[in-house]
Amino acid sequence: MYKDLEIIRVEDDSFAAGNHSVIEETLLSVIVNGRDALTAMISPVMIKEFVIGFLFTEKIIRGTDEIESIRIEDNRASILTKNPFAILTSHKTVLSGCGGSTSFLDAGHLPKIESDIVISPDVIRRAVKETLESDLHKSTGGIHIIGLFDGEGKSLKICEDIGRHNALDRIIGYGLLNNIDFSKTFVVSSGRISTEMVRKCLVANIPIIVSRGATTTAAVEAANIAGLTIAGFVRSRKMNIYSGFERIKGASLYDNNQNKSDKL
Amino acid sequence: MYKDLEIIRVEDDSFAAGNHSVIEETLLSVIVNGRDALTAMISPVMIKEFVIGFLFTEKIIRGTDEIESIRIEDNRASILTKNPFAILTSHKTVLSGCGGSTSFLDAGHLPKIESDIVISPDVIRRAVKETLESDLHKSTGGIHIIGLFDGEGKSLKICEDIGRHNALDRIIGYGLLNNIDFSKTFVVSSGRISTEMVRKCLVANIPIIVSRGATTTAAVEAANIAGLTIAGFVRSRKMNIYSGFERIKGASLYDNNQNKSDKL
Repeated sequence: MYKDLEIIRVEDDSFAAGNHSVIEETLLSVIVNGRDALTAMISPVMIKEFVIGFLFTEKIIRGTDEIESIRIEDNRASILTKNPFAILTSHKTVLSGCGGSTSFLDAGHLPKIESDIVISPDVIRRAVKETLESDLHKSTGGIHIIGLFDGEGKSLKICEDIGRHNALDRIIGYGLLNNIDFSKTFVVSSGRISTEMVRKCLVANIPIIVSRGATTTAAVEAANIAGLTIAGFVRSRKMNIYSGFERIKGASLYDNNQNKSDKL
Repeated sequence: MYKDLEIIRVEDDSFAAGNHSVIEETLLSVIVNGRDALTAMISPVMIKEFVIGFLFTEKIIRGTDEIESIRIEDNRASILTKNPFAILTSHKTVLSGCGGSTSFLDAGHLPKIESDIVISPDVIRRAVKETLESDLHKSTGGIHIIGLFDGEGKSLKICEDIGRHNALDRIIGYGLLNNIDFSKTFVVSSGRISTEMVRKCLVANIPIIVSRGATTTAAVEAANIAGLTIAGFVRSRKMNIYSGFERIKGASLYDNNQNKSDKL
């Protein structure tokens, strides 16, 4: 994940040549059924999981059983799907706040979350702590982490990437390869929850996403439509719940309408 | 930039309905010469500057004089260019680490920086401090900031967006509209310096980019080829210079080769 590069270190007015670990960012060409689907800049780890997760969240495949073959070599991943006409239609492009994809968030066509999971704030707090403890970005400032947890807060997998979206695709690919029932899980993100993060959760039917960071208005709007739970600013003892109150023990006393009528 | 949303606040085991300022993320459709060019998720400020900067860094226009007309209405920006055939060719897509675009970083075709600017570490430190002091992300956790400075460290403009790339496009659009000679400037980013940030600087001929955060191996490689200066981890008295040493007073004693021979 890192390469040692030669740098100049500056401290006040003194300069010294030295080395520094720099996060690796590599180019990956994804070829689907013989056609260029994507050129991605990613961290060079768990490439198969990333590719499968990406194809799934972009709806090119609906599951791993639709993959005929997948070949990873150097900076290229070649996938054949059982439907040889499956291909990324890239006429729409979203530059999301931070992290982009070729997808388009159409509120009218959002998949609805189907899950009866309810988790406690304490489970969320512990999961965030566990995710961030493995957090290389504390020391390096450049890595995003996504953790996948079950309803009791047991860690199922933690993935890293230079980008949050890549890390989320990767963890979804991991879940698909390991037959994880996403409706009984939640994800922790080291970074902000944008619409693109919400869209990926909805496609995978992951019912809850939490972060120590913020979220955006469009993410909350989409989450409200689709029934996704967003909790942000999870820090030590506090957190904010923005949507899907019914899935958080205690908060479930308030439904969104209750909350609104309280304020009137 | 913010909307007040109704949330549930959790502290330990107590729950309370309340309000919270959430960063606004809105959809913008960009139509170039009658054709859909882009659907972007951006902060709803300085939209004209964002659109012009984006068209420029995507090389759809080479300057503001190539724009026939630009109309911004609600969530749509319509641009006519003097060349009616100018259009975004989106057959290649980069999902950069964090923030994506339709561009492709081809090391063999990177524009080379042309600039004789040399700045001192002290100017960098003050510029980073000034940029981050206006930094809403300290309180909200969700906004990226880009500052544009001249060689003496005078702030020319500071822009915010939910995404670093959008903010950089916006500041480049601002510079184009105000005839700023980018070769005599440098930019400060609140976040990581990825290849996509480097590519935008190269297209605009901005010779130096600095950040309080990290950079990536691919960004440094591209910067070395194109002669861009990258300084990262600019924090209180320290910083690391990753490339283009000759543009930093003091570090210019080391050239990249000197540095290498020192290490052998």
